[in-house]
Amino acid sequence: MVANNENYGGLIDNGAIAIEDDKIAWVGSAEDIPLDYRDWTSKDFEGALATPALIDAHTHIVFGGDRAVEFEMRLEGASYEEVARAGGGIISTVKATRAASVEQLVESALPRLDALIAEGVTTIEVKSGYGLNLESERNMLLAARQLATLRDIEVRTTFLGAHATPPEYKDQPDDYIRLVAEDMLPRLHEEGLVDSVDGFCEGIAFSPDQMKIVFEAAKKLDLPIKLHAEQLSNLGGAALAASYGALSADHLEYLDDAGVKAMADAGSVAVLLPGAFYTLRETQLPPLDLLRTHQVPIALATDCNPGSSPLTSLLLTMNMGATLFRMTPDECLAATTRHAAKALGLDDRGTLAAGQRADIAIWNIQHPAELSYRIGFNPLKARIFGGKP
Amino acid sequence: MVANNENYGGLIDNGAIAIEDDKIAWVGSAEDIPLDYRDWTSKDFEGALATPALIDAHTHIVFGGDRAVEFEMRLEGASYEEVARAGGGIISTVKATRAASVEQLVESALPRLDALIAEGVTTIEVKSGYGLNLESERNMLLAARQLATLRDIEVRTTFLGAHATPPEYKDQPDDYIRLVAEDMLPRLHEEGLVDSVDGFCEGIAFSPDQMKIVFEAAKKLDLPIKLHAEQLSNLGGAALAASYGALSADHLEYLDDAGVKAMADAGSVAVLLPGAFYTLRETQLPPLDLLRTHQVPIALATDCNPGSSPLTSLLLTMNMGATLFRMTPDECLAATTRHAAKALGLDDRGTLAAGQRADIAIWNIQHPAELSYRIGFNPLKARIFGGKP
Ligand SMILES: [Zn+2]
Ligand SMILES: [Zn+2]
Repeated sequence: MVANNENYGGLIDNGAIAIEDDKIAWVGSAEDIPLDYRDWTSKDFEGALATPALIDAHTHIVFGGDRAVEFEMRLEGASYEEVARAGGGIISTVKATRAASVEQLVESALPRLDALIAEGVTTIEVKSGYGLNLESERNMLLAARQLATLRDIEVRTTFLGAHATPPEYKDQPDDYIRLVAEDMLPRLHEEGLVDSVDGFCEGIAFSPDQMKIVFEAAKKLDLPIKLHAEQLSNLGGAALAASYGALSADHLEYLDDAGVKAMADAGSVAVLLPGAFYTLRETQLPPLDLLRTHQVPIALATDCNPGSSPLTSLLLTMNMGATLFRMTPDECLAATTRHAAKALGLDDRGTLAAGQRADIAIWNIQHPAELSYRIGFNPLKARIFGGKP
Repeated sequence: MVANNENYGGLIDNGAIAIEDDKIAWVGSAEDIPLDYRDWTSKDFEGALATPALIDAHTHIVFGGDRAVEFEMRLEGASYEEVARAGGGIISTVKATRAASVEQLVESALPRLDALIAEGVTTIEVKSGYGLNLESERNMLLAARQLATLRDIEVRTTFLGAHATPPEYKDQPDDYIRLVAEDMLPRLHEEGLVDSVDGFCEGIAFSPDQMKIVFEAAKKLDLPIKLHAEQLSNLGGAALAASYGALSADHLEYLDDAGVKAMADAGSVAVLLPGAFYTLRETQLPPLDLLRTHQVPIALATDCNPGSSPLTSLLLTMNMGATLFRMTPDECLAATTRHAAKALGLDDRGTLAAGQRADIAIWNIQHPAELSYRIGFNPLKARIFGGKP
């Protein structure tokens, strides 16, 4: 069976896909295979279901260390100060990341990447943002690029220098933002390491005015932007990002009507991150109905990171989208395929149609809804990456 | 490293385990290996962490059909009536289970079982309760027994005839309960299919008085009991079960002080099921602090079932125990090892100590807290079942 159309409602029973090199040449019912293709090598997947391969459009999968001990301390009742004194929080990840070589960053990221690949993921986004200085941000992006040479995966890199203020700029966040915008970004871009630019716009991170400085720098370099926005409060970050034609705004629990409209006008994707919502035990739901009404495309991503979302399953993310955000299974599948592609500015993948990359996931299931229905189960039967099984 | 002591706090660095046949002969530091064992065949797990193998103490893993389409209908806004008219709800699972042969039940359960086994699970409990007549309840229990012949797993069966009233007894639940207690239970017990007896005590299922009839029948046959209790309301089911010396009471979101005390006095285990809590988006938390105060052992289980918890990951269950119920990682590990063993009445497993079954999980992690910290990640390196790798 092939699930290829816009809303995945119209499954093709006994479907077939013709692949030429790394592209899909034709999709349809097996009975209708054009004569030209009939003598091609073929593989029978015996009633399994084909969908576009999955895309994880928001990850921080490259980082040093982990935060398991901090997780434990918190659950054992340690106060915020005690955790901080023991070296916890994002700064502990910054320290571990700065201490790691590119090779070590790659080595620690691979098991997480492999978990995603095992679920039929063929494209992921990887952010920097735990280096917070030129050298370590570069190392993170180099590690991200290396992942794509070690596995059958396409990696899109995002420069997230504006993730947090590093300790050495403790009381000078504006100076740090200037460093990010005027020094780090242009250099890393010149080195070919930056596919897009992101920031964390929040009371505990950077203000819209600070983000504007980064976005202006990105604009000068003709780089697309994204933004962590409206996760814990409404600062209008999504509307700001939209005004720069953002590929996406991400999190969005506190997004308001104006923000939704701005995103709709700009064609930005709403990337929802239920893993962080779950881990932080949030109660404020992103405005699903408003997003639907204004036809903002909705993506779902793992937000894989050591603090607020140590999550390495995109299938579980789909289940969380359905369970926690009440998204329909069709929405959840679009959210990890064509809408995720759009959130990365990619129009050559995310659907099963002639001309698209042959990135295909084949599942031991009867109905696409099973992908979001099950919890902690992986029915992947085969994964095709650019035509390669 | 070996995590073997009561609270898992005292890890043995460079630990070693000596295994003789299917039992643990000795546990300690590699430097202290007794002379007798020094020339035994040995395997080096290179810094990996050994814990007791995991135990899933509450599953409904054997059933016919699935409920993905119902899941989808609900999320697409179908009313309760529309779902019912389309054949949804528990009765749809009863129909599919009755229509399935033992072989079909086994075949559909195996992928779910394999998902648990892949996470280092070596013992699971399997309940009947979707047959709701002698023949189909028998088929479910036969399928459960067969699983243990097809995989390296120990299966404990639980007769759950008192799960729901079947359609043919629609307005005569008391007649059905008598059938369960007087006919089905004694027969299935005589056939050697029943290790314990369970029921669903809830407004939407059976009353404490009805459950009493089942428990009296179990008592006559000298069978241990369990109960689904206090999930959606407080009917005093846990205290009733405790008065019969229950192995466990399960769910327990609405358990009160008296119930906790009764369980503590009876030595019953509190089996918490965060997968159902998550799927049903419950907000009433089980009384963790009361359970701790009264030293009721707490287990965690998947409750794997097609309706309220289509969950096949015990590691994710541990993360849910930590994230949703604020259990510590130590509690989560005890909850899927020694407390889970106790919930099944087994005292030969669940810890790493001389004399225990050699059921061991070996993980690519540094610290036991990582098992509950990560979400949707499986760091299992090796699984030893009764001494067999
Ligand atoms: Zn993020
Ligand atoms: Zn149950």
